[in-house]
Amino acid sequence: MYMGQHMDLVVHLMVIKFASPNSAGAECIDPDCSWVEQWVHRAGPRKQIYYEPKEVKAAIVTCGGLCPGLNDVIRQIVFTLEKYGVKNIVGIQFGYRGFCDENLREVPLSHQVVQNINLAGGSLLGVSRGGPSISDIVDSIQAKAIDMLFVLGGNGTHAGANAIHDECCKRKMKVSVVGVPKTIDNDIQLMDKTFGFDTAVEEAQRAINSAYIEAESAYHGIGLVKLMGRSSGFIAMHASLSSGQIDICLIPEVPFKLEGPNGLLQHLEHLIKTKGKAVVCVAEGAGQELLQKSDATDASGNVVLGDIGVHMQQQIKRHFKYIGVPADVKYIDPTYMVRACRANASDAILCTVLGQNAVHGAFAGFSGITTGICNNHYVYLPIPEVVRSPRRVDSNSRMWHRCLTSTGQADFH
Amino acid sequence: MYMGQHMDLVVHLMVIKFASPNSAGAECIDPDCSWVEQWVHRAGPRKQIYYEPKEVKAAIVTCGGLCPGLNDVIRQIVFTLEKYGVKNIVGIQFGYRGFCDENLREVPLSHQVVQNINLAGGSLLGVSRGGPSISDIVDSIQAKAIDMLFVLGGNGTHAGANAIHDECCKRKMKVSVVGVPKTIDNDIQLMDKTFGFDTAVEEAQRAINSAYIEAESAYHGIGLVKLMGRSSGFIAMHASLSSGQIDICLIPEVPFKLEGPNGLLQHLEHLIKTKGKAVVCVAEGAGQELLQKSDATDASGNVVLGDIGVHMQQQIKRHFKYIGVPADVKYIDPTYMVRACRANASDAILCTVLGQNAVHGAFAGFSGITTGICNNHYVYLPIPEVVRSPRRVDSNSRMWHRCLTSTGQADFH
Amino acid sequence: MYMGQHMDLVVHLMVIKFASPNSAGAECIDPDCSWVEQWVHRAGPRKQIYYEPKEVKAAIVTCGGLCPGLNDVIRQIVFTLEKYGVKNIVGIQFGYRGFCDENLREVPLSHQVVQNINLAGGSLLGVSRGGPSISDIVDSIQAKAIDMLFVLGGNGTHAGANAIHDECCKRKMKVSVVGVPKTIDNDIQLMDKTFGFDTAVEEAQRAINSAYIEAESAYHGIGLVKLMGRSSGFIAMHASLSSGQIDICLIPEVPFKLEGPNGLLQHLEHLIKTKGKAVVCVAEGAGQELLQKSDATDASGNVVLGDIGVHMQQQIKRHFKYIGVPADVKYIDPTYMVRACRANASDAILCTVLGQNAVHGAFAGFSGITTGICNNHYVYLPIPEVVRSPRRVDSNSRMWHRCLTSTGQADFH
Amino acid sequence: MYMGQHMDLVVHLMVIKFASPNSAGAECIDPDCSWVEQWVHRAGPRKQIYYEPKEVKAAIVTCGGLCPGLNDVIRQIVFTLEKYGVKNIVGIQFGYRGFCDENLREVPLSHQVVQNINLAGGSLLGVSRGGPSISDIVDSIQAKAIDMLFVLGGNGTHAGANAIHDECCKRKMKVSVVGVPKTIDNDIQLMDKTFGFDTAVEEAQRAINSAYIEAESAYHGIGLVKLMGRSSGFIAMHASLSSGQIDICLIPEVPFKLEGPNGLLQHLEHLIKTKGKAVVCVAEGAGQELLQKSDATDASGNVVLGDIGVHMQQQIKRHFKYIGVPADVKYIDPTYMVRACRANASDAILCTVLGQNAVHGAFAGFSGITTGICNNHYVYLPIPEVVRSPRRVDSNSRMWHRCLTSTGQADFH
Repeated sequence: MYMGQHMDLVVHLMVIKFASPNSAGAECIDPDCSWVEQWVHRAGPRKQIYYEPKEVKAAIVTCGGLCPGLNDVIRQIVFTLEKYGVKNIVGIQFGYRGFCDENLREVPLSHQVVQNINLAGGSLLGVSRGGPSISDIVDSIQAKAIDMLFVLGGNGTHAGANAIHDECCKRKMKVSVVGVPKTIDNDIQLMDKTFGFDTAVEEAQRAINSAYIEAESAYHGIGLVKLMGRSSGFIAMHASLSSGQIDICLIPEVPFKLEGPNGLLQHLEHLIKTKGKAVVCVAEGAGQELLQKSDATDASGNVVLGDIGVHMQQQIKRHFKYIGVPADVKYIDPTYMVRACRANASDAILCTVLGQNAVHGAFAGFSGITTGICNNHYVYLPIPEVVRSPRRVDSNSRMWHRCLTSTGQADFH
Repeated sequence: MYMGQHMDLVVHLMVIKFASPNSAGAECIDPDCSWVEQWVHRAGPRKQIYYEPKEVKAAIVTCGGLCPGLNDVIRQIVFTLEKYGVKNIVGIQFGYRGFCDENLREVPLSHQVVQNINLAGGSLLGVSRGGPSISDIVDSIQAKAIDMLFVLGGNGTHAGANAIHDECCKRKMKVSVVGVPKTIDNDIQLMDKTFGFDTAVEEAQRAINSAYIEAESAYHGIGLVKLMGRSSGFIAMHASLSSGQIDICLIPEVPFKLEGPNGLLQHLEHLIKTKGKAVVCVAEGAGQELLQKSDATDASGNVVLGDIGVHMQQQIKRHFKYIGVPADVKYIDPTYMVRACRANASDAILCTVLGQNAVHGAFAGFSGITTGICNNHYVYLPIPEVVRSPRRVDSNSRMWHRCLTSTGQADFH
Repeated sequence: MYMGQHMDLVVHLMVIKFASPNSAGAECIDPDCSWVEQWVHRAGPRKQIYYEPKEVKAAIVTCGGLCPGLNDVIRQIVFTLEKYGVKNIVGIQFGYRGFCDENLREVPLSHQVVQNINLAGGSLLGVSRGGPSISDIVDSIQAKAIDMLFVLGGNGTHAGANAIHDECCKRKMKVSVVGVPKTIDNDIQLMDKTFGFDTAVEEAQRAINSAYIEAESAYHGIGLVKLMGRSSGFIAMHASLSSGQIDICLIPEVPFKLEGPNGLLQHLEHLIKTKGKAVVCVAEGAGQELLQKSDATDASGNVVLGDIGVHMQQQIKRHFKYIGVPADVKYIDPTYMVRACRANASDAILCTVLGQNAVHGAFAGFSGITTGICNNHYVYLPIPEVVRSPRRVDSNSRMWHRCLTSTGQADFH
Repeated sequence: MYMGQHMDLVVHLMVIKFASPNSAGAECIDPDCSWVEQWVHRAGPRKQIYYEPKEVKAAIVTCGGLCPGLNDVIRQIVFTLEKYGVKNIVGIQFGYRGFCDENLREVPLSHQVVQNINLAGGSLLGVSRGGPSISDIVDSIQAKAIDMLFVLGGNGTHAGANAIHDECCKRKMKVSVVGVPKTIDNDIQLMDKTFGFDTAVEEAQRAINSAYIEAESAYHGIGLVKLMGRSSGFIAMHASLSSGQIDICLIPEVPFKLEGPNGLLQHLEHLIKTKGKAVVCVAEGAGQELLQKSDATDASGNVVLGDIGVHMQQQIKRHFKYIGVPADVKYIDPTYMVRACRANASDAILCTVLGQNAVHGAFAGFSGITTGICNNHYVYLPIPEVVRSPRRVDSNSRMWHRCLTSTGQADFH
């Protein structure tokens, strides 16, 4: 078996302490977790494994919204579990909801079931937001006798995973809870990038190019594309840069005003007068201060954002009508078409490695961790480290300045 | 030169009467137009040509909204004009507007300029709706000394082209006005299909597949896709059939009700309860009777439609909330991403033949005609024949019944 | 059930005579087959069905090479059989071979199994060439108690299907043998087009565009693309026309010489000297007279063709070396990448209708027929009519002349 | 101007010494090049620029074979030069050949010319291998009065660029020679990745998926895909990993034998017997020891490789014929279709930054440098550092082991 060989190769990289599985009192797995001494661990297989593979029951759950690569990660977790010798692998349907909804069965997973699921987008297991209480979830884990739980989701989901881990520790259950960060926005602290992001930037090109063509082919055409990015503008920034077709890129991190001198509308006027067209890319979380506040939250606990795309479309139309200059605004919101894509090659590799590492981490006895790529190295990190706040675009960074250079836009304030 | 050879080959197919170019009084071209005797003419090169190519000034104009293949037709008109020996070819910018807007110059066109324009969507010349009066346009044609005018546009544009032709006749100007029907909706009377339609159906697959994946991956997911089709549901019908993923297809030709027994909402409930998901495809012109009337028209004179997609999204959400069943509605409007595509291979061939035939028609001395494919044959038709009313889906046709069989939907009334 | 409604609608279109299933002597199905009186039948459901659906065992087999759309047809046959009420549906693996190879099991088919197979290319059932004797196949049909056999394949496969039909008649077995022509080359007599062809032309664009870019970016670049087309050049002709990037298109129907005055090599020299580049598209069956003869045949009984692509590549290189002009030849053979594609939207609709009609035909009691589209109408035809010889490009046709006009090539003889 | 602002931001990052442009004797640019003290420099704009933009004539040349992204880099170099204020920008046609071939003119470059060239693959300027002597090139640079030369090419081209730089120094010409590494194989020492690689891996997925589908759909199908990689297997390794469909991946760095126990053919037999199919991915430079040696070199001085793909195809066929087991081998060589692609989004960003940095480097007075990304940072490196030898896959690396785990292949020796 190759796996063994790999372990030999990498074991010298780090030594971790396992909680002895036979130790009296059945402590929580890896009780001190060595995080005290070593904050981040290199991901990969370990010489010593904490579970007897044949006795393991492993479960996978996917939460939140869709993101390219979910099926790739599921597939690779199943493959790697089987390589370890695990026979009992199940999927929990529709996120945490699947733990407690009696109409939702566990889905048996195997090589044959997952062989080609990476060829389609979406999630084989279904996703949903929210779900039962932590206590109910852990009751269900106990009832189902799950030893390893792989959780694919964003910040909220990870906070839940950590709470599940804590509750399992409290109940002295030996359950490895391992997260794989799933955020198309690429907004996880410390991580170089998260899976699905590259694919999203790639797919966003279609929408941007369509907006460009509509703008160019129309008389005084203005193409407006809304892309994902609740609190972070990475997708909008990267998609704008790679397209080379964007005149204005708006992200949550950089406030802007529409009206008045140096306002966005004035710049649009300038573009229409000089170039005859303009293409604008706006992240969904940008310019929220311009919208009427709402206190509503969705089932994941996220604040429901006002729709900046629709708002800008209206304001731009209104403005050009007011100043008596014709303008033909075309608004494109490709969100679902981007999310539902299958992973591109680059994300497929990332998903493969993350899926493998998630399993290695569980077998190493880690729990309450998540796995990612950090400064070009694949690592395990304690969940609390990554969920504190979203990673955001630094408006003083070179990448943002490259974006500004590329668009030629001014500061709109 | 191959062209000559082709002419020899086809000339026996029909004999048309030319207005003698030397006849006293500079009669209108092809004054009786032979339509009296022969209602439809086979398209193609003629043995005798009505113009001295070296003295011809030809102009191309694209009107209305974008449609895949516009650049293919422009390119082929230029190529074919050059094969005849025409040197003076120009593009009129942004539809009829370009005739009278002093800021818009004529764009010189040549092999080199148009060589690769088919690789991108949009229109090299720009499009727009509306424009100056017929009288002003003909003044401009006269001032610019245009001999041939190629008009790419829909029903409204063709009506304009015919009026231009009539006005030219009245002024005894020898101008060939030749149309190429451009309607992504495929709703031109008598024609098998119009360019851009195949590409639109193909591109719509992305949106439908995304809606399907979103619906399948969500708990009680409902995917809703709005496709083009103001008065005709061909795109929605064909896209639904080819996807094999649609549960309900709604077109303008078949009224439906949302509420009550046998209403669409009831059927959606049924689908959610039995399959756990549903995917709906709605043409933009469907269900207009459900929306509040507006008398507004756009610059092309088309009635501004209410947004049936947004309306249905709201009604579905409202309904499921009301009955207390969770439902996760995802709405996709891919219109601009579909319109802005480049033509696929099948449309590229159609555009090539239409572009060639438009030029052959002008050189044959026809005016006030349009060119298309009719029962597998390429033909010339008098414009008034094709603009009377849009072609519509016959709700008793086999194709619509195949669509119903494929979706399994009931009558919603 | 909609099916019934459809039958009502179409039943007036034709009346066919059924052999009474209860008639003494268990005659062959539809013994006089009405072909005597009516050579071609309109395809579609019939008022009266010949089989009791619940008792039917139906089998599907795919033979020959891959072609986009095989899975679409399989899927639709299964869907339609289930709509009739058939429960027992199986797939025969790897073509006719699957009837007699003991290692190959029947594959149970159902809605669930085939739901998403259209999203991938290839054939769920596998394909192969050749196979056991007709007698052995019919023995197997008898042993497996198959009532309906749907055969997807080309001319050779159809000849086999007809022989199976004849043998079944001889043995007085009531088996409906219904073919669906599968030839990516679009070379079936009488039929407007066969499934997979449109997709092939579309996919070929990638290869042609790559050859164009390689030719344009190289110094004296010559791009050479070999496309499918054993005896018919439809793919090469359509792909050349739609690309607008081909300088020379070579098809089996039009012989050419390489050397000497008016030879292809001389024309290439001319192109290199004037345009600095050239792009050539050659059908695999073109120019066979230039290659050394071989008497070898493959398992389908097709003569093994010499490789005209490799031959031309070598001859072009040799020639330019000989005349001392640099030339950079890039040869692309995209055959497998084209064949293995999933069907595009246009083919998906064709496959849907063909699959439905194949089942309608079997239930109507037809056997020894194949189904296709003929002059825009879906029809049933007796197999012998379509397999006599391949349909070929008419070198006097308008389409071939349009292709010549587009490429600007001369006659190379 | 934003550029100034950026310079302020980054100037504190490093201080470099400029050769005073006014210094007596017109020293070579940046004579000590500061490499002595600081081996690698962070790329980006500098506070002080060495040239007066309005007086600068800049030239761009692209050498070697095609690679996705060439047009993106050209475009960005032109944009950035124009931002500095350079008016005189030209392209040298068809690699170094363009310096001395009288038939090849300089191509004037401007924003308008390059605006949309990134939407197509290839190189606007054309590429070629080899070219005139260094001395002749520098004569031409002198005659054309070029101040900045941007060279896009691989190792051989960079060696040439360095020789040009040296010769310019010797002749005391103030010419900035700046390279941008162009190798689709991703085999440049010290660099994280080179442009075009990501796109190549992405596009290779089509070929691999086709091979997989052909293998799966055939009886005992074996799909064989040859990918780029003369001395380094990065494309094959990444494409195999990301596809998840490869059973055997062969790279130049890991020798293998075909025959005998533990040979590749034996493993193929095993796969055919157990899985019924196999998919093999081979880098073009793999297994050269199995082929007959040739001493031939191409115009770039690269050894002409024997064709391992064709060789393996023949050996596999021969072997299975010999052992009497049917096997259906399908061989795909997608090389030109991969090379001729336009850059994907990820590469487009890389190209954008590299193009900007190349110009910043030239304006900073550097010469004999190349620009790349190294451990996530954009840097300038002295050319000799990167051209010594190609970067290769470490057969002990985690990535190669992940690939082995994914394929499940053994060592074939």
